[in-house]
Amino acid sequence: MTGAEVLLAEIGEQPGVLERIRGDGSIAELAARLAAEPPTLVRLAAHGSSDNAATYGIYAFGRLAGRTALRDSISMPVYDGVRLGARGELAIALSQSGETPDVVTWLRAMGEAGATTVAITNVPGSPLARAASAVVSLGAGEERSVAATKTYTAELAVLARLAAHAGGRGAALDDALGATIELAGEAIASLPAVVEPVAEALAWAERLMVTARGPEFATAREIALKLTELCRLGGVAMTATDLAHGPIAALDERFPVWISAARDGSLEAVREAVERIAASGAPIVAAGPGAATLGARHAIELPPAPDPLLSPLLSVLPGQLFAAALARAKRLDAGAPRNLRKVTLAR
Amino acid sequence: MTGAEVLLAEIGEQPGVLERIRGDGSIAELAARLAAEPPTLVRLAAHGSSDNAATYGIYAFGRLAGRTALRDSISMPVYDGVRLGARGELAIALSQSGETPDVVTWLRAMGEAGATTVAITNVPGSPLARAASAVVSLGAGEERSVAATKTYTAELAVLARLAAHAGGRGAALDDALGATIELAGEAIASLPAVVEPVAEALAWAERLMVTARGPEFATAREIALKLTELCRLGGVAMTATDLAHGPIAALDERFPVWISAARDGSLEAVREAVERIAASGAPIVAAGPGAATLGARHAIELPPAPDPLLSPLLSVLPGQLFAAALARAKRLDAGAPRNLRKVTLAR
Repeated sequence: MTGAEVLLAEIGEQPGVLERIRGDGSIAELAARLAAEPPTLVRLAAHGSSDNAATYGIYAFGRLAGRTALRDSISMPVYDGVRLGARGELAIALSQSGETPDVVTWLRAMGEAGATTVAITNVPGSPLARAASAVVSLGAGEERSVAATKTYTAELAVLARLAAHAGGRGAALDDALGATIELAGEAIASLPAVVEPVAEALAWAERLMVTARGPEFATAREIALKLTELCRLGGVAMTATDLAHGPIAALDERFPVWISAARDGSLEAVREAVERIAASGAPIVAAGPGAATLGARHAIELPPAPDPLLSPLLSVLPGQLFAAALARAKRLDAGAPRNLRKVTLAR
Repeated sequence: MTGAEVLLAEIGEQPGVLERIRGDGSIAELAARLAAEPPTLVRLAAHGSSDNAATYGIYAFGRLAGRTALRDSISMPVYDGVRLGARGELAIALSQSGETPDVVTWLRAMGEAGATTVAITNVPGSPLARAASAVVSLGAGEERSVAATKTYTAELAVLARLAAHAGGRGAALDDALGATIELAGEAIASLPAVVEPVAEALAWAERLMVTARGPEFATAREIALKLTELCRLGGVAMTATDLAHGPIAALDERFPVWISAARDGSLEAVREAVERIAASGAPIVAAGPGAATLGARHAIELPPAPDPLLSPLLSVLPGQLFAAALARAKRLDAGAPRNLRKVTLAR
């Protein structure tokens, strides 16, 4: 198998991984413990794709469990000895490998401060898992590709289920998750034919803006990262409002914009941004259930998720497949980026 | 005056603006009220450069006042009706113009939830100021350039003073701030001659990675934004660890990396990242008090700030001047980006 084949195979494994997470009783059990004593604050720590999943966690805990979640500073406890964690808080560390040293150190510091510590990882025997008071295994199987795909969506599903079950909405979310997984399988089958011509048309791109609002901002960050990693371009993630606030000035016909458009309360704000972006001449790719209505040059329509908070499980799929296709259009091997070891021991 | 001349003039006004903030007694008074009843949580909300200042606020409140601060979701209260604010919390909104509607709506929602609300703005009579229970005026004078410079560093200084005075370290910080302002004046005078040859050497860049760790991550975000806005390139900000985690794979001789290197606990981690980046062939610009020791192709040495937490007031200066010089090298008018109104009314 070439690297690109491994990447595409792992993208295709996502529905199976999500189905396993949907049936994982230990997540509901852990959530029940959280519901019994709701955390005063939810701290999330991670790097890379897992940090993008943490962005999603802010919306999942806010909307499904009514809890404030934040992406915590890792450097303050690790490098500066600042101790901000406290009893009553929930500290969640996310890492595919469970080996990134500063995330392990962060979780230990949170445990010492009295917080409930949870590791979400693909390697249940890893140092991160050993540092946690509770472990949720992603069970995604070995991720051989250096670009994370199945572990990213697995982390989203774990966070959504944890938050929903903690907030007393577990059964409804699990039903919606089941239907979403079916839609994901259909999308993975049908999307390659849709994204490939877009990738061919944009093979020259050296920079690309990815924009969205609300929970889809996690998607924007993850797609920008996939494009940067796999296609050697400057992928910049920005909310639609931040884009309109300044960087819209930078757009021109050589600076494409990918818009992740959910059909939610933010669609009108996204529509206004699209109108201003279009005036710059930038090629626009709109992907999502709101895509066809936006008048973008390239529209990648997706079915709406049964629960809007599960939409990021679908909206990242065209981005993953587009990044793979764009790497191929650029004659790069998407599965084997240079300079990269799979497990990062960098501090 | 051309747009570029306006931009450079505003960069030059920064020491004067910072000196005024250093002497603003109302900041210490507001901080004294916070010290009397320390907030359980500090929420920050902003867009664009002000959001990068909010990143700095996380470190300022964490390290100087021992308080957890977070960049709050604006979309949850504004678009989804999610109410997470609470009595006992401090909500700080940052906006140059004080007119961005969703930030105003966010601050109102926080006030309704019982939080203490503070507006940090350059326009004391703005809607944001009217929505707040306390206002800190940046007093930076009209910012005519579309790219924020003097209001960004003004926001950093306000956040540092608020946090330090709330944490009982106000006098020491104000002393250090005075010395830092002197260093800033010297840097603004001497840096143009240093950054211009670097800009000439990198005039071809279409993408650029900006990396740092700790409080300097605010600097990395702000420099990436300035480069994206002014030079029409894909400027990607990433912590040194996130870079090593994956996107280092994307680097090559056409993907320069700007490193903001403080002389603090993270310097060794930055040094490890630099070694791996250098192996990719990417041109490296290192700026800061640690720069000369890193073996980068381009080193922009800065004096260390008397307090490491004030280092971002200095380290952003070469980035601002480099962005202006790179725009000139690219034959763009740095002061007049297309498509951009100064005041963003986008939602």
